[in-house]
Amino acid sequence: MQQLLSPTIPYPSPLFRITPHPFPSKHQFSLGDRLSFYTPPKMASFSGFLAKAQMEVTAANGIPSLMDYVGKGGLDVGDDLLVLLYHIQFACKRIAALVASPFNSALGKHSALTTAAPSDRDKPKPLDIVANEIILSALRNSGKVSVMASEEDDAPIWINDDGPFVVVLDPLDGSRNIDASIPTGTIFGIYNRLPELDNQPVEEKALLNSLQSGTKLVAAGYVLYSSATILCASFGSGTHAFTLDHSTGDFILTHPSIRIPPRGQIYSVNDARYFDWPEGLRQYIDTVRQGKGKYPKKYSARYICSLVADFHRTLLYGGIAMNPRDHLRLVYEANPLSFLAEQAGGKGSNGKSRILSIQPVKLHQRLPLFLGSCEDIDELESYVDVQQKVNPGYEV
Amino acid sequence: MQQLLSPTIPYPSPLFRITPHPFPSKHQFSLGDRLSFYTPPKMASFSGFLAKAQMEVTAANGIPSLMDYVGKGGLDVGDDLLVLLYHIQFACKRIAALVASPFNSALGKHSALTTAAPSDRDKPKPLDIVANEIILSALRNSGKVSVMASEEDDAPIWINDDGPFVVVLDPLDGSRNIDASIPTGTIFGIYNRLPELDNQPVEEKALLNSLQSGTKLVAAGYVLYSSATILCASFGSGTHAFTLDHSTGDFILTHPSIRIPPRGQIYSVNDARYFDWPEGLRQYIDTVRQGKGKYPKKYSARYICSLVADFHRTLLYGGIAMNPRDHLRLVYEANPLSFLAEQAGGKGSNGKSRILSIQPVKLHQRLPLFLGSCEDIDELESYVDVQQKVNPGYEV
Amino acid sequence: MQQLLSPTIPYPSPLFRITPHPFPSKHQFSLGDRLSFYTPPKMASFSGFLAKAQMEVTAANGIPSLMDYVGKGGLDVGDDLLVLLYHIQFACKRIAALVASPFNSALGKHSALTTAAPSDRDKPKPLDIVANEIILSALRNSGKVSVMASEEDDAPIWINDDGPFVVVLDPLDGSRNIDASIPTGTIFGIYNRLPELDNQPVEEKALLNSLQSGTKLVAAGYVLYSSATILCASFGSGTHAFTLDHSTGDFILTHPSIRIPPRGQIYSVNDARYFDWPEGLRQYIDTVRQGKGKYPKKYSARYICSLVADFHRTLLYGGIAMNPRDHLRLVYEANPLSFLAEQAGGKGSNGKSRILSIQPVKLHQRLPLFLGSCEDIDELESYVDVQQKVNPGYEV
Amino acid sequence: MQQLLSPTIPYPSPLFRITPHPFPSKHQFSLGDRLSFYTPPKMASFSGFLAKAQMEVTAANGIPSLMDYVGKGGLDVGDDLLVLLYHIQFACKRIAALVASPFNSALGKHSALTTAAPSDRDKPKPLDIVANEIILSALRNSGKVSVMASEEDDAPIWINDDGPFVVVLDPLDGSRNIDASIPTGTIFGIYNRLPELDNQPVEEKALLNSLQSGTKLVAAGYVLYSSATILCASFGSGTHAFTLDHSTGDFILTHPSIRIPPRGQIYSVNDARYFDWPEGLRQYIDTVRQGKGKYPKKYSARYICSLVADFHRTLLYGGIAMNPRDHLRLVYEANPLSFLAEQAGGKGSNGKSRILSIQPVKLHQRLPLFLGSCEDIDELESYVDVQQKVNPGYEV
Repeated sequence: MQQLLSPTIPYPSPLFRITPHPFPSKHQFSLGDRLSFYTPPKMASFSGFLAKAQMEVTAANGIPSLMDYVGKGGLDVGDDLLVLLYHIQFACKRIAALVASPFNSALGKHSALTTAAPSDRDKPKPLDIVANEIILSALRNSGKVSVMASEEDDAPIWINDDGPFVVVLDPLDGSRNIDASIPTGTIFGIYNRLPELDNQPVEEKALLNSLQSGTKLVAAGYVLYSSATILCASFGSGTHAFTLDHSTGDFILTHPSIRIPPRGQIYSVNDARYFDWPEGLRQYIDTVRQGKGKYPKKYSARYICSLVADFHRTLLYGGIAMNPRDHLRLVYEANPLSFLAEQAGGKGSNGKSRILSIQPVKLHQRLPLFLGSCEDIDELESYVDVQQKVNPGYEV
Repeated sequence: MQQLLSPTIPYPSPLFRITPHPFPSKHQFSLGDRLSFYTPPKMASFSGFLAKAQMEVTAANGIPSLMDYVGKGGLDVGDDLLVLLYHIQFACKRIAALVASPFNSALGKHSALTTAAPSDRDKPKPLDIVANEIILSALRNSGKVSVMASEEDDAPIWINDDGPFVVVLDPLDGSRNIDASIPTGTIFGIYNRLPELDNQPVEEKALLNSLQSGTKLVAAGYVLYSSATILCASFGSGTHAFTLDHSTGDFILTHPSIRIPPRGQIYSVNDARYFDWPEGLRQYIDTVRQGKGKYPKKYSARYICSLVADFHRTLLYGGIAMNPRDHLRLVYEANPLSFLAEQAGGKGSNGKSRILSIQPVKLHQRLPLFLGSCEDIDELESYVDVQQKVNPGYEV
Repeated sequence: MQQLLSPTIPYPSPLFRITPHPFPSKHQFSLGDRLSFYTPPKMASFSGFLAKAQMEVTAANGIPSLMDYVGKGGLDVGDDLLVLLYHIQFACKRIAALVASPFNSALGKHSALTTAAPSDRDKPKPLDIVANEIILSALRNSGKVSVMASEEDDAPIWINDDGPFVVVLDPLDGSRNIDASIPTGTIFGIYNRLPELDNQPVEEKALLNSLQSGTKLVAAGYVLYSSATILCASFGSGTHAFTLDHSTGDFILTHPSIRIPPRGQIYSVNDARYFDWPEGLRQYIDTVRQGKGKYPKKYSARYICSLVADFHRTLLYGGIAMNPRDHLRLVYEANPLSFLAEQAGGKGSNGKSRILSIQPVKLHQRLPLFLGSCEDIDELESYVDVQQKVNPGYEV
Repeated sequence: MQQLLSPTIPYPSPLFRITPHPFPSKHQFSLGDRLSFYTPPKMASFSGFLAKAQMEVTAANGIPSLMDYVGKGGLDVGDDLLVLLYHIQFACKRIAALVASPFNSALGKHSALTTAAPSDRDKPKPLDIVANEIILSALRNSGKVSVMASEEDDAPIWINDDGPFVVVLDPLDGSRNIDASIPTGTIFGIYNRLPELDNQPVEEKALLNSLQSGTKLVAAGYVLYSSATILCASFGSGTHAFTLDHSTGDFILTHPSIRIPPRGQIYSVNDARYFDWPEGLRQYIDTVRQGKGKYPKKYSARYICSLVADFHRTLLYGGIAMNPRDHLRLVYEANPLSFLAEQAGGKGSNGKSRILSIQPVKLHQRLPLFLGSCEDIDELESYVDVQQKVNPGYEV
């Protein structure tokens, strides 16, 4: 015990000087506005404990939470959006708690993966449905949402004539990973309700409000349920990530103004589909694997098969996260994540053109999706033939 | 997994009558002994909430925690091992809390991955070191450990002459994933101290105790830090997983007597290394990708690049998790995970022979590693030439 | 809100039938309006576990959180007040976490109580100051507060010209109990900013806004830090209490429309001051102790010496909580708690007249305070001479 | 926001110097042995945040948890007792979580207090029963307990012939406070099983083992469920308190070697019973209220009516906690708390003689109880006639 308690880490003296944070009040926010907003205090000398302590002290003194960040003293996104965000993050904390609970880990049947008939495999797992209900309930309670369009529902749900916002979402993406406690996520996009549709029949205005172009997004984000719970969002002025502090239940700003590296060294795809890929994609992958592309380094593969987790890593480390067949949804997945990618200086493409410029025509419209570093996406697109046309409906 | 959900506790109408727990006392435990121990209640009709509620009720009435499970009423592994396990799980909860905290998420600089010089990339990240210290402290406090050999330390650390156990471990595997909050894990193996070495010099007995063959493992396990925190362990009578209940800080039995499916449909490898693979491995992967192997289905790829997470998914879903070059450590990683694989009915191989039969000769000895379903491992080994000899030291 | 609470998930018959909750939408809220708002589902047959399970199921389906309750689907208090409440409850969760932490429990030195010189005993304990800073920071971040007047500060703090609200508060009442982990609490009152003062000098308008009569309170509340963390508040339509759910960090409605019993059987006072009391108070206490008052039962004593805890018990169990000397503060303590008492059907008195009708003239104005059941307060007041004039400045 | 983020607390430079803790290994523990064991680091200059940060850093480096403290590196109480303690603290964390949960707060009906018929008032509230079941289950799982005698059960429960220990306990003391979230507690005492009784009939040996004299206690403790969750225990070498760290679920040593002040200034009793008290007690209370006793200061009253909370405050602040009528139980309450009082340098008395010397003759034997500072207890006893003989069975 003697050793246990003797100090092993030397603590250098000039601790806890807190650099005043350049956190300007900003009374308008808009697409294209990209402030380099706030940077967490630097640590001159480094040590796990030291840094932890220092960060905690700093936190208590003012690292903003999500609600601070979007509030009057920060981005000032307006009370309507702020209240909506409160309810979204609240719902996501509930989902995070369910996903972490020992009392849910046995709910999904993983045997499905190896034995289920093809018709069964898209059958939503229970937690998908639960997550969908939790979010619907939160959006209703917010009083700020006119219509919610969810990947889990066939049609959009009209909630409230007065709600200023339209919310599109995938409540629990990657839910087939749940049984193995592999990361999952929630994706959401927020549009303004289109007043010109207010007099249309409910079904029609619900649908048309949900089919807005990604360029009209007011905000988008995701929540990653992994070893930490991370909410990453953009309101048109950069992409920012917040990490859940379990001791208070709030999301603390940990990754302000994320800039995706212009070039990464990781690609993320289901390599097992190699023989179903078009020639262009095969060539691209073969090229970067060997370090023979424009960037003369051997790329590495990662594929969690959880879009939110693969995208989050790509946002921080660079490279490309992709699904080349028309599998992912334009409205619920491709648009919100492309918005976040662009706001972080990256790109979202279908392999030929910008995702955000595609006008949705169907609610559950699917398409190939490539997200990531500008130079990597550009290089990929130069191979032209990168969209997988064959879509045999894989079992796993 | 079928067993997991089969009913042993009937819920008759006057609810909550507490059936005496069919939790047999067992006074010896040994390799090869595989009790099907305990099964949580079945749910006649199903619904997420219903199940959750019922499980919680059940829990309060007797779903065992890790400490219950290994105690007198369960496996009865003996007080020495029980106390050691208490301290290991305690340390892992501390690590889980650090990994989840917003105040640590900014500690690692993610730019490292794209910009660091090759010499830098194996430099341990801070949380590795912190995790190592936390576990060392816990093992010391247990009073049950004579020597700890950690992947983070050059040499084993002699702790206590009287400690009945030897602990080998990788304190935070996959730590390069931390910056992106991708899952990481702790791996540990437990041996008996060899009394015949007691009179040797400290360095010698520390080393030789740590180099025991995997067949001598008394227990092994890992803790997965992901959307849930899961401790999976074996004491020689099956492989069992426990999920952290954050409301009480205890690990609750959620996956008793895991049986890895004899055949999976997922392979996990860094596909980007295809061009560095030997012919046999290329052929194997190309074959299963196309559904042309012994199992006539197209395999799918997953690669989190976190050994614990990739192995955990393989344990539950079947298939193979592998790293074909001599990268992973026999003592800290391959042996404990092979022990768990075998106890779940699977296999751990270096591509040619059983991992557990390899006599370690060096503490940090590296080797190719293939873990997973029996039939998949057998089929892979039939390709003979599956070990990657080229090891150029990839950057990512 | 109607939709929110109507059951959308069909629950197969025996278990968990959920009674639809009578939770009417209400679009105006005002003083004097006393709806019996919502009742938690009844349990036909009772058992701790059953009830717990049922409540949890219900919760997931719609027991409202604080933010739901005050939002569009509930009281609809307006976005300004809703945002302010978010920030207040956020600050209080931080305080709760600090009060519970092992790393704070050693901060105060308990010897103070027995050894400190009289001049020392009102010296604020560290956590008072910390709590004050946390709340000030939260109010600033809300953007909704023009001025905060705290029991810890000599003068009110002007925050924001545009803030629609004035907040008065005692950030950590009962802080001398902290060293022994006896309950403490935060008390707050919310007024509208008086626009007619906007052109006054800052100090003047800060002061005058803070000296508003209790009848002008828009909202008031407290947070009790005890074995549970409870936020109790009124917005002029009943008094409602919410309990912190640690798994999500939100306050869940647990005590809707609290009605203080018209008559209790408990009095709460520092009985040790008996010999300093006026004759009337002595007679009253002696009478009810012997069951010789209007209610023919022997009263019982309770005195935690934490105003929030003593008041919370009184609100639920009935009786009187009092401090007969001029010790408690009109602005920070007496007015908010009297507002809550009245909204629950009880009374707040200085022994002679209604607290809320007293016009504050000084910020830190002190007075005798009697809170509780109507009939008990009336009976007490009938003894006339109940205010303790002697105030020798007790040490403990 | 500018102000929010500017540093307001100056951090003096020589931080984080960690004094090596004098935490001696100790291989025997026995009654009467009173080590001054360990002291937390002192803080030269003080500030809430500073101290918090410093404590947390220290903690990560080695403030021991309960399990460390009683383990090989600390008191070394032996594996049997250590394992038992693990299970007791585990059960108490479950109880703490239940008590804190919003889903339990509505279970008890608070109206009971004012309306229930006398016969109803001792009817155990649901959480009592739940707590009793949780502890019984934990003791069973420990494999270390031969017999448990609980205040909730009519007769002791024989658990396990081999269990080395006898546990007596009050699973949830003060449970009538639960509805108002006022603190409650668990009290336990641990004896060795008497081997000379092993061949007796089960009922007889269960009873006789449970009726051991308090002087034979091997260990005793309580867990306080309040604004923090505190486990206070003695193993015969001082009284030590540990506070639950919610982030890891472990109890951290926060109050080592508690010494109750020899003289306090607080008395804790139900003053409402004044007219039922004997003359001696009236005189004593009247005397200390007026500061006319041996200690020339006016005493103050506190009465939470939760024995654990009132005792915990008394332990830290000094004075007397008492119930002068024969209400409290010798076996479950008086003996364990008297043991803790003595180990902290205080006293436990029935008003005439030392509690620990009283030989229990009945399991549920009741008696007057006075716990606290030596000088205060001595002074009280000098009034001779302090036991209340009248016991009319009060309603509240």
